[in-house]
Amino acid sequence: MAVSAPVDLRSDTVTRPTAAMRAAMAAAEVGDDQYGEDPTTNTLQRRCAELLGQEAAIWLPSGTMANQVALRVLTRPGDEVVAARECHAAWHEAGGSAANAGVQIVEVGSGGVFDVDDLDAAIKPSGLPVFPPTTLLQIENTHNRAGGVVVPQAVVERVCARARERGLKTYLDGARLWNAAVASGRPEAELAAPFDLVGVSFSKGLGAPGGSLLAGPRALIAAADRHRRMLGGAMRQNGIFAAAALHALDRHRERLAEDHHHARRLGEALAGCPGVDLDLATVQTNIVVFRLAPGMPDAATLVAQARERGVLIVAFGPRTLRAVTHLDVTAAQVERAAAVLRELLGG
Amino acid sequence: MAVSAPVDLRSDTVTRPTAAMRAAMAAAEVGDDQYGEDPTTNTLQRRCAELLGQEAAIWLPSGTMANQVALRVLTRPGDEVVAARECHAAWHEAGGSAANAGVQIVEVGSGGVFDVDDLDAAIKPSGLPVFPPTTLLQIENTHNRAGGVVVPQAVVERVCARARERGLKTYLDGARLWNAAVASGRPEAELAAPFDLVGVSFSKGLGAPGGSLLAGPRALIAAADRHRRMLGGAMRQNGIFAAAALHALDRHRERLAEDHHHARRLGEALAGCPGVDLDLATVQTNIVVFRLAPGMPDAATLVAQARERGVLIVAFGPRTLRAVTHLDVTAAQVERAAAVLRELLGG
Amino acid sequence: MAVSAPVDLRSDTVTRPTAAMRAAMAAAEVGDDQYGEDPTTNTLQRRCAELLGQEAAIWLPSGTMANQVALRVLTRPGDEVVAARECHAAWHEAGGSAANAGVQIVEVGSGGVFDVDDLDAAIKPSGLPVFPPTTLLQIENTHNRAGGVVVPQAVVERVCARARERGLKTYLDGARLWNAAVASGRPEAELAAPFDLVGVSFSKGLGAPGGSLLAGPRALIAAADRHRRMLGGAMRQNGIFAAAALHALDRHRERLAEDHHHARRLGEALAGCPGVDLDLATVQTNIVVFRLAPGMPDAATLVAQARERGVLIVAFGPRTLRAVTHLDVTAAQVERAAAVLRELLGG
Amino acid sequence: MAVSAPVDLRSDTVTRPTAAMRAAMAAAEVGDDQYGEDPTTNTLQRRCAELLGQEAAIWLPSGTMANQVALRVLTRPGDEVVAARECHAAWHEAGGSAANAGVQIVEVGSGGVFDVDDLDAAIKPSGLPVFPPTTLLQIENTHNRAGGVVVPQAVVERVCARARERGLKTYLDGARLWNAAVASGRPEAELAAPFDLVGVSFSKGLGAPGGSLLAGPRALIAAADRHRRMLGGAMRQNGIFAAAALHALDRHRERLAEDHHHARRLGEALAGCPGVDLDLATVQTNIVVFRLAPGMPDAATLVAQARERGVLIVAFGPRTLRAVTHLDVTAAQVERAAAVLRELLGG
Ligand SMILES: [Ca+2]
Ligand SMILES: [Ca+2]
Ligand SMILES: [Ca+2]
Ligand SMILES: [Ca+2]
Ligand SMILES: [Ca+2]
Ligand SMILES: [Ca+2]
Repeated sequence: MAVSAPVDLRSDTVTRPTAAMRAAMAAAEVGDDQYGEDPTTNTLQRRCAELLGQEAAIWLPSGTMANQVALRVLTRPGDEVVAARECHAAWHEAGGSAANAGVQIVEVGSGGVFDVDDLDAAIKPSGLPVFPPTTLLQIENTHNRAGGVVVPQAVVERVCARARERGLKTYLDGARLWNAAVASGRPEAELAAPFDLVGVSFSKGLGAPGGSLLAGPRALIAAADRHRRMLGGAMRQNGIFAAAALHALDRHRERLAEDHHHARRLGEALAGCPGVDLDLATVQTNIVVFRLAPGMPDAATLVAQARERGVLIVAFGPRTLRAVTHLDVTAAQVERAAAVLRELLGG
Repeated sequence: MAVSAPVDLRSDTVTRPTAAMRAAMAAAEVGDDQYGEDPTTNTLQRRCAELLGQEAAIWLPSGTMANQVALRVLTRPGDEVVAARECHAAWHEAGGSAANAGVQIVEVGSGGVFDVDDLDAAIKPSGLPVFPPTTLLQIENTHNRAGGVVVPQAVVERVCARARERGLKTYLDGARLWNAAVASGRPEAELAAPFDLVGVSFSKGLGAPGGSLLAGPRALIAAADRHRRMLGGAMRQNGIFAAAALHALDRHRERLAEDHHHARRLGEALAGCPGVDLDLATVQTNIVVFRLAPGMPDAATLVAQARERGVLIVAFGPRTLRAVTHLDVTAAQVERAAAVLRELLGG
Repeated sequence: MAVSAPVDLRSDTVTRPTAAMRAAMAAAEVGDDQYGEDPTTNTLQRRCAELLGQEAAIWLPSGTMANQVALRVLTRPGDEVVAARECHAAWHEAGGSAANAGVQIVEVGSGGVFDVDDLDAAIKPSGLPVFPPTTLLQIENTHNRAGGVVVPQAVVERVCARARERGLKTYLDGARLWNAAVASGRPEAELAAPFDLVGVSFSKGLGAPGGSLLAGPRALIAAADRHRRMLGGAMRQNGIFAAAALHALDRHRERLAEDHHHARRLGEALAGCPGVDLDLATVQTNIVVFRLAPGMPDAATLVAQARERGVLIVAFGPRTLRAVTHLDVTAAQVERAAAVLRELLGG
Repeated sequence: MAVSAPVDLRSDTVTRPTAAMRAAMAAAEVGDDQYGEDPTTNTLQRRCAELLGQEAAIWLPSGTMANQVALRVLTRPGDEVVAARECHAAWHEAGGSAANAGVQIVEVGSGGVFDVDDLDAAIKPSGLPVFPPTTLLQIENTHNRAGGVVVPQAVVERVCARARERGLKTYLDGARLWNAAVASGRPEAELAAPFDLVGVSFSKGLGAPGGSLLAGPRALIAAADRHRRMLGGAMRQNGIFAAAALHALDRHRERLAEDHHHARRLGEALAGCPGVDLDLATVQTNIVVFRLAPGMPDAATLVAQARERGVLIVAFGPRTLRAVTHLDVTAAQVERAAAVLRELLGG
């Protein structure tokens, strides 16, 4: 890359496959996955099932599809789902949760986290046909729009236990579960254990070019297979993508700590700027979400100014921004980005 | 009725048709409404269109169906709707908004009211496929779960104006618009004027045994006709019900002031009890929603205790209750209910 | 009625309540049916449950809603339903089956009837995610568009038995089951026995101004209650309509034989016309569906010509017409209609 | 491959990428396609838009998703779609058409083809709320379950012209349009010209490991982008798959003639067997669909017997089978398969 290549902190999805990953993809043994004959996809599914402590798993083209299929498997139209405020399923899936599964998401808590009280308050009285029945609890871990925060496992466990007591199913949107595992020092299987169904993505921090996966009991994964087909997510020789995911599981998982370190550096730089509202306690993984104080330019202006100086970030709201570190951003680039942003923000 | 007949404050829907209303129903001229040949239904539709200042109107079996048909007419699956927190469409329609129309409702504001800032903050950025497009603004006036509050017309007008600027359609859930008109001293047509489509109910304060109506431009009412059929709301000789509605429009509209006065009496009694949390400013029409302070029994307990003493109210939440005055509750009964509740609540 | 009042054979839904029915409605004891407190609705539900040999029943505003609720209760989105060709659910419900329940209807057989072979051929292979799973069998009895034919009970029984063997649920769209019972001499309970859920209508041959009902096991009726609410079919003091239905069950059921006799007379007159294609074997109840032979005017023309001469019938297709006899058509009117149609058709 | 490798005629989707295709994939320039920055996907989209004579195009993970997105873009829930009997959207998409788009498909014609009369007969009367509005015509070309037949372009043109006259939109399910182009000698753009929206697949005869595409006017492709996201079909660095598709367009399009020749050979062998019902006129491209005559074993038995002898075909029904030729089947393998099937079928 030329000196002037921008530092792209828009998302951890922008990473391009490394040479080694491309080699793994080029060499992948493949077959028709709709006949269950793609050996690399099968390997990935087995491996992830084991890694997540689940019976079975199924590959899907995207995290959105994983979430949408999970909703279709675990709910019926007219049901209500409790999730953290600004969860991906309500905000970043084009309205699919209502359009595809016919469910209504009740957003609770704050900072990506909610507790038993919030859950209890959100569950509508059962047995009365006037209320939508609350049938699913969903936790997004790490929570993207809250700044990549890790939901404390003690909270996860007691909320899921309460959900089971109340007759709710439970779903873990673990698109960035790999980051949560590294940040918390807990294996993915432990993080996934309290849930009926678990989704993970390979195209975010892990740096694969695409693909997600649902894991859970065999019967639910069979149901997911049907809904994957119905939504158009059943592909053919997707061993190509599965090979990238397997490669990423081997090579790019532990290194997420580096991204977290980079985000921390960036967060510290931003938190020191007078015009920035950022609680460093939220910078736990590879995401930095910060707000511009009154008197500062708006988010769109900062995005444009940063872009001119070779730093790409995204607006999450009129005064809210997100920067994400990843595999394709070096320590030096992080320093450069921090300097640019500090300068723009009067830090 | 015997002396011991309970004072039924559960809802203004429990009223039974008066003798005069029954006579009107018995004498109604009818025809097959699916052929557009029910003269009494046609009269009701014309009259309400005029009363609401709209081109056309269509009868529907319930307020829920009016709301659901409005959603289907004004949105497409995957769209997002902005409405006041705890609106009927999100809370009291069995999850139909997502199941029938595939839309997601974003609840904003507080106390049944929200303003331009809330609307602006709730509209997701347009033109990005990741976000659900915000396409509809909905206002419930009066707002049931907020305590029957009237949304100030100046707020209605500026929020609807802003919605139009942002390309949103607007819907007025006016199930209790008759109460808002009486309480505010503004004609229904003025309250309805800022909206694309308006729904009203005959089975609440007006005391008819059933039926609601949508009013708006001819093209939208034609679309509503199709969706009424699709949801199973097209009936036959519903002039019987239309006659009750016409009778109620003539005889039961102005008298809503009496219900409002009764609710005020009840509210004052409750507000004076130490264990009750009730802002009298919310008691604007025929609904009293109040909360039990910490240390008091929970809502279910109070409901049961009041029932034993011949007063029926409903729990709206673990510590929240609702009492509603209406046509079948006399001033004396209101005093009796107030006394019973005061006694139970240590007032 | 004046001499010139038209003979209205468009549908058995056009009947107007008799004076006695109006009196029953005016005297009906009522309550709020959403609280389960409408005594007349409760009586109707109990009586119909018994009459249909089922555990429980629930009132609904229309036959379309009965069918739509049945689909939502017995299927899940993506399922496939096997039904007779030109069934009401696929043809006359505005596309609701797909829009509300997300199901695909496979139309089989001919003349309103299909047998085990047709069912077997229509069931898609199970266990393969590529095919929609076939999960429901639906029979419409009598079958409207096939000319009001009664499905032979032996066929009903073996098709339902086969459906159960194949793991399908079964639904009887019995909007005109009363006609089938009278024509076949079998009690409604016998006709309904093979099914999981049964729908009947009061607003067709029975002459009530509106209303239908679903009957079945208690658990399914509880589910239907939720979906009735979700679709907007839960009303309030619908004892008014229930009283009409109860009156009709007492007074208008046996007299359906008269309508059948009238249809027969009309059918014979039509079958004798050279330009008419009508198999008299299909004229089993109160419906006559006939086709115009090549060389004859089209259906719309005949409808218009008959209307000018005071006879109302409907076009069911470019060359297909329907005439329906009912409570409000006398023997003399049937003769008049027969004479008019014969004259127009060169008979 | 060893001598004993089976001849896999189950589908043209089973092909594995060639070494050259793998090299193209490994070298693909990629970016984040959700930001519109995947250069190879962009190239593929531009190239296909041009090839199909359309303004714009969008990549999708599967042919099912292309069809489902097309339905969502071109219809609204409750609409009716006219298509050829046994079309992919009704048979092979897991019930998605009703579940995702809420539409009902009316299957007409025979042998994969229907004409203006069939269309006219299938369109339900407009303007009556009782009927589902017919709003879309869909043609599958080549038609899979009819045996890969090419719909004659004159038929396509007059049916689409009639659809436009009647106010219907038009969609071409061209998953195997490449085969239709080669077989008919007409460029894809000519075949696609009569339609509002066109879908093509890369993972069938072209031999790419996955991916499909929709092409049409810019506004419809923008709508498709939203629905792609909503269904979970938006991926990231899918230039990897786009590179395979580009390679296939260059290298594997003209050679489809060879597959057609092989299918013809197989068809002739099968047609000569006494127990086989096969009209050679249907063998126009790379698919052979044939039926087993009475007295012959059923389809499942033949599939199993052929498998034992190293030939893989699929059952399409109790007595119907399909064999498909493709890139990974040599002339010698076709001869071997023909010999095996002839022997099993007493030819
Ligand atoms: Ca990537
Ligand atoms: Ca963070
Ligand atoms: Ca009432
Ligand atoms: Ca009637
Ligand atoms: Ca008949
Ligand atoms: Ca392939």
